[in-house]
Amino acid sequence: MKATFYEGNQSISVGPCIPVPPAAGQVQIRVSYCGICGTDLHIYLGHMDKRVKMPQIMGHEMSGKIEILGDGVTNWKVGDTVTVRPLDACNECPACKAGNSHVCQKLKFIGIDTPGAMQALWTVPAHTLHRLPAGLSMAHAALIEPIAVACHDVRMGAVKAGEYCVVLGGGPIGVLVALVAKSKGAHVLVSEINPFRIELCKQLGLEAVDPRTVDLVEKVNADTGDAGADVVFEVSGSLAGAETMTKLPRVRGRIVLVAIFAQPTPVDLFRFFWREVKLIGARVYEPQDFDEAIALLAAGEVPFTKIITDVYPMSQLKKGFEEMASGGNVMKILIDCAEV
Amino acid sequence: MKATFYEGNQSISVGPCIPVPPAAGQVQIRVSYCGICGTDLHIYLGHMDKRVKMPQIMGHEMSGKIEILGDGVTNWKVGDTVTVRPLDACNECPACKAGNSHVCQKLKFIGIDTPGAMQALWTVPAHTLHRLPAGLSMAHAALIEPIAVACHDVRMGAVKAGEYCVVLGGGPIGVLVALVAKSKGAHVLVSEINPFRIELCKQLGLEAVDPRTVDLVEKVNADTGDAGADVVFEVSGSLAGAETMTKLPRVRGRIVLVAIFAQPTPVDLFRFFWREVKLIGARVYEPQDFDEAIALLAAGEVPFTKIITDVYPMSQLKKGFEEMASGGNVMKILIDCAEV
Repeated sequence: MKATFYEGNQSISVGPCIPVPPAAGQVQIRVSYCGICGTDLHIYLGHMDKRVKMPQIMGHEMSGKIEILGDGVTNWKVGDTVTVRPLDACNECPACKAGNSHVCQKLKFIGIDTPGAMQALWTVPAHTLHRLPAGLSMAHAALIEPIAVACHDVRMGAVKAGEYCVVLGGGPIGVLVALVAKSKGAHVLVSEINPFRIELCKQLGLEAVDPRTVDLVEKVNADTGDAGADVVFEVSGSLAGAETMTKLPRVRGRIVLVAIFAQPTPVDLFRFFWREVKLIGARVYEPQDFDEAIALLAAGEVPFTKIITDVYPMSQLKKGFEEMASGGNVMKILIDCAEV
Repeated sequence: MKATFYEGNQSISVGPCIPVPPAAGQVQIRVSYCGICGTDLHIYLGHMDKRVKMPQIMGHEMSGKIEILGDGVTNWKVGDTVTVRPLDACNECPACKAGNSHVCQKLKFIGIDTPGAMQALWTVPAHTLHRLPAGLSMAHAALIEPIAVACHDVRMGAVKAGEYCVVLGGGPIGVLVALVAKSKGAHVLVSEINPFRIELCKQLGLEAVDPRTVDLVEKVNADTGDAGADVVFEVSGSLAGAETMTKLPRVRGRIVLVAIFAQPTPVDLFRFFWREVKLIGARVYEPQDFDEAIALLAAGEVPFTKIITDVYPMSQLKKGFEEMASGGNVMKILIDCAEV
């Protein structure tokens, strides 16, 4: 039984997994698969060295089977297949008390602020569990967490059938947002500069353009009879995205801010005034977003699983990070955590 | 009968008013009072020389009596006291067709894109009229337009009783926003650097602080049990305001963007993500905001009229602009347009 460790300075090691016996209210899970998230890449690149405790076991996009139940855990049994909503709220801060515990002011993100899922056996609070439907592929189930992000983003944007949406940034989250928005009956345009990702979007049935060769503002205005987009999802985290996001919405249109901007960024605030545009910050997910993600994935009608471009053994985790960092021909990479 | 003219280069002249006979659907109004708006100051300072047609008669915060009815104007009679909602929409663009004609994509703002009210007789479309209640002071009625701005901003911010609001910028619009928010039962804190305006806020029953001597973030967190503000109104249009606005809201709090930012401005987009904050652009008003402003003013319970610091004859319009531009001891200056 193995575990992977981030040791700083873009160093990854694979060593023995030391299982943690579940305390009361916890479960131990035998992990099947764990996707590599963009946040994991940030950790690998050293951007979060102040937050993580090295050696850090990363990973929070996972599927697995319950191995051991801690005391007092009801409604679950050994062998149940699950995924984890990796949020541990304090339940005491003003945000928690107001019913927004997913954005708890002292939120512990499991797998960042605590050990993560890229190991054979993972111990987490039972309140984080969501049940997998019978028959769902364990590899596919590792997509539930990022699909839940997308469900949350689309819900925060209140996307309705017939609306015109633009997704700025066609990485894994952007593509999942696009697919979920499309599943609501919206028309979705993805703006992305990586040719591999543009091509993958097209294979997924999404309209995708390179904003360096297509004038997005002209295209959106032409497509919408000069109204502008109903909803813009900024998922790129780029200066160009922050500049473009304000140019596209219609009067009273919405911008959903999904990306993480590390620095204050120039924004054309005039456009918010001029067109009464809303900017809506969206972070992680609530339980209902996980439920929706599981239902959408299990229904099999949306081609989410085509974003899985590679499944690597733990020993190739570093290779996965390097491919992601190089902007290569990858979308979502899964790590097989069940290897002996 | 006189009119005032902006002739470029901070030059104001007073000359004869040349009345425009009302066409079908228009009315001619004998103007009583007209407030000087911050936008008029922008025109005076030359910031809008590309937009206005010189010589420009400014002014859109007015009260008056109907002098002549154009053909086909029903529901109004000569002598009715009125104010004007100075928006002329195209009724054909996507925003108009979607029911947002106050933010028409080809909006003509009457008094900026057409001649304004700082003259004895003013001709406008009858659809812009709102009736004044019997007994309302004509001077006070010149405040209805900026109060309607405040009613719109507070409505867009969905302020509820018991909420904690911060208004960044205690000029006329900021103070009116604060008063309207307070009338909803909210606690309101005004942040302003001008000592005269801080003192006036206090006389109006508003809590007001200078953010250079009081740490706003500390104060708001202390006042709200570390939750943060429910609603922040950015009315200052300053770099400092754009920086502060993101630091104050609670999880899922709202920022209402009222000010006009001429240039792209650094914004901490991370806070929108981190706390799921919303930014809501707010511009002008809808008919219901005028109705609310009139009702609030007529009820006499909110001390709106104390913001009137001076009433000048037309010949002193330039003096009014200079006092506003110098940041002196002024809040709202009215021009008496009824002078012979």
